Amino acid sequence: MLTRIDHIGIACHDLEKTVEFYTSTYGFEVFHTEVNEEQGVREAMLKINETSDGGASYLQLLEPIREDSTVAKWLAKNGEGVHHIAFGTADVDADAASVREKGVRVLYDEPRKGSMGSRITFLHPKDCHGVLTELVTSAPAESQDH
Amino acid sequence: MLTRIDHIGIACHDLEKTVEFYTSTYGFEVFHTEVNEEQGVREAMLKINETSDGGASYLQLLEPIREDSTVAKWLAKNGEGVHHIAFGTADVDADAASVREKGVRVLYDEPRKGSMGSRITFLHPKDCHGVLTELVTSAPAESQDH
Repeated sequence: MLTRIDHIGIACHDLEKTVEFYTSTYGFEVFHTEVNEEQGVREAMLKINETSDGGASYLQLLEPIREDSTVAKWLAKNGEGVHHIAFGTADVDADAASVREKGVRVLYDEPRKGSMGSRITFLHPKDCHGVLTELVTSAPAESQDH
Repeated sequence: MLTRIDHIGIACHDLEKTVEFYTSTYGFEVFHTEVNEEQGVREAMLKINETSDGGASYLQLLEPIREDSTVAKWLAKNGEGVHHIAFGTADVDADAASVREKGVRVLYDEPRKGSMGSRITFLHPKDCHGVLTELVTSAPAESQDH
């Protein structure tokens, strides 16, 4: 069951400049940074609010670290902007199976590593009215590394 | 001060079909529907979670009602997908003035009517790393019409 907007993923050309925009313009703060080699990005998570399911909602700013990453290809085609949206769930495996049964293409056979030790999968945007959609289960609080 | 992700605005060609996708695929529920003549859209708000500032986060599904609306033009260019993101604040006037002082173009001189009696303004996407960004102050709870 999807219980929150976990984050909005925003693709950018220059992570430092984009972080500077969001922190200086709105007063948001960087909660976490990491490099995700598998996804081919480095990223900054800005926590915006906490949510009624015990989680939180973030902006996830993404800069590609190699030209063959999906975010690099997306940026080359679209320019900077909203790359994907992510819904939080306590059980990404169950929700991925549920949406797959309904005919939505799930891009990974098994969830992969996301931000802050989370487990994530993506749904095909053509099956989601044009929206690249991520499902995410956060790491247990004690194991979150930020 | 921006204290929550208020909503993600998603442009679609057929509101009923898109609502059906989000409700049947994920189990989300329609919280509110309305027509915004000024914005040239009809819309459905799906509440996803409540937020730590006393508000909530929604998906806002938008279908244009006339060809000269900004959402219709955006759809013709981009196809279905994420049209804008919105941050919630207790004082949209103060936050609009603050970001304008920092050199970000604010699209309205004064906030206009948004969903559920809210007051909204938009920031120019070219000043926001490609993201059309809305600032929104909800109507007082007792006057919310949903």
